[in-house]
Amino acid sequence: MRILILGAAAGGGFPQWNANNANCREVRAGNRNFPAQTQSSIAVTIDGRNWCLCNASPDLRQQIGANPQLQPDSAGPVRATPIRSVVLTNADVDHVAGLLHLRESQAFQLYATRRVLETLASNSVFNVLNPQYVTRQPIALETPFEPLPGVRITAFAVPGKVALYLEDSTQKNFGTETDDTIGLEICDTEGGGRFFYIPGCAEMNPPLGLRLRNAPLVLFDGTLYTDDEMIVSGEGVKSGARMGHMSMSGPRGSVAAFAGLGVRRRMFIHLNNTNPALNVEGAERAALHKAGWEVAMDGMEIVL
Amino acid sequence: MRILILGAAAGGGFPQWNANNANCREVRAGNRNFPAQTQSSIAVTIDGRNWCLCNASPDLRQQIGANPQLQPDSAGPVRATPIRSVVLTNADVDHVAGLLHLRESQAFQLYATRRVLETLASNSVFNVLNPQYVTRQPIALETPFEPLPGVRITAFAVPGKVALYLEDSTQKNFGTETDDTIGLEICDTEGGGRFFYIPGCAEMNPPLGLRLRNAPLVLFDGTLYTDDEMIVSGEGVKSGARMGHMSMSGPRGSVAAFAGLGVRRRMFIHLNNTNPALNVEGAERAALHKAGWEVAMDGMEIVL
Repeated sequence: MRILILGAAAGGGFPQWNANNANCREVRAGNRNFPAQTQSSIAVTIDGRNWCLCNASPDLRQQIGANPQLQPDSAGPVRATPIRSVVLTNADVDHVAGLLHLRESQAFQLYATRRVLETLASNSVFNVLNPQYVTRQPIALETPFEPLPGVRITAFAVPGKVALYLEDSTQKNFGTETDDTIGLEICDTEGGGRFFYIPGCAEMNPPLGLRLRNAPLVLFDGTLYTDDEMIVSGEGVKSGARMGHMSMSGPRGSVAAFAGLGVRRRMFIHLNNTNPALNVEGAERAALHKAGWEVAMDGMEIVL
Repeated sequence: MRILILGAAAGGGFPQWNANNANCREVRAGNRNFPAQTQSSIAVTIDGRNWCLCNASPDLRQQIGANPQLQPDSAGPVRATPIRSVVLTNADVDHVAGLLHLRESQAFQLYATRRVLETLASNSVFNVLNPQYVTRQPIALETPFEPLPGVRITAFAVPGKVALYLEDSTQKNFGTETDDTIGLEICDTEGGGRFFYIPGCAEMNPPLGLRLRNAPLVLFDGTLYTDDEMIVSGEGVKSGARMGHMSMSGPRGSVAAFAGLGVRRRMFIHLNNTNPALNVEGAERAALHKAGWEVAMDGMEIVL
């Protein structure tokens, strides 16, 4: 099984259109230690010719342009794609807006929880995905499905929150019991490789720790380095916890939370543009490496 | 007044994600006669520091990345944008999806007809544009408004159709009387420059011809070169007329329709990936030049 990092950044990408923080200024100034990253998505393949996307970022058209593996075969029919399926982990704009790029009557399978499918159904703009071609398949938690021959995925609830645009002051917007935010366990049924993809996670609770124990690879929520990062930089009033993301550092951070889990390969993905670990030569990136973590970058391929 | 071409291609862009026609193959092969183009949008400025976008394409984040004029001032505040306003000409995905890039509590004014605003309002995903920051202003036809100091825009109905995803078998989907598709007359109130922006138009009728007569510049619907282009290429069953776009060539095409209008500068924009005029060295591009037409390209700037 091969994993292609389509986008390593969180919502907004790196740089973010309206952000003028130190990180974003360095990218725009062309500092090679701050390589631009598109928004959160990965692609998975067994044979290199058929791909399953996990999440569809707003940058998907650009990501397809940057990765020839996802482009139509030049010896093939006049309309074609190697993208066979898309699996969504929540209804966040940075995970669903890319569906709007996948129009033009092209067949593929779309997998998401019922709540996420309901959100798509209630937004007519997603009707650009012609139902004659695009089948919307509800995912049930803890029930394996095969979005690609030889790839078996099991979705599970992770502590998280509903998408910002769906927040409702009359309702509970956080919950570990709902299927608003899910993680995916992705297995190669022939080769035996497997990994976890968890781009958003508010908390490492005991059931999640148990599930991840001794996993060969986890791609994990790397939104913020410190919980108050956006408040300190003057860019927002929300902590990581308020946004449904645990931070990399600190006593309740993900580096600490993974310390005893025995996960062989740990990689952060979904980095917010304020995260100092985006600096490939920075102290924070070095500290992560020292703690046994890698940081995903656009275009990276992982063979399992 | 300066006009920046953000995207010269029609919906899907050039190349289109799932298209393997001769044009798209040439772009992907790196043939320099077939430069890639992003999706339909322009930006207008008077002072070079404040910009109004006409349409928000799905590629808007990439377009901002490619055009430093639209990026935050590195000497300015930590969150900022030179984009002051966005004007929509219809609810097509290639004209509205880019609004999803413009989130993160940034203030700007959004102008569209009531019908287009209703479509946005009925799609909760556009709530990422926080109403505390983004004001949605209804445009009335034939009633000038100023989306930027010194820029006066007048919207007018053009023959067109509703967005594909809003088509309804029980309703009339074409019409010259509705405000589903509009054209814009854009005037520099100080400098006196003016031009028309009409990225979608199904037919040149007498009122439109009268309006455009002797205009200094028209940016016009260049979707298809010939009406049956997509049918011939095997990529679709729809003619240009069915899609609400008049073609460049032919007795009822736009080159012929503009012949007697005395428009000083004529430029095609919104080119579909099948259009042979995308080949900058091709016979069709040469024929357009001979007929007095230019073809817009990403990054082009026009000073009026």
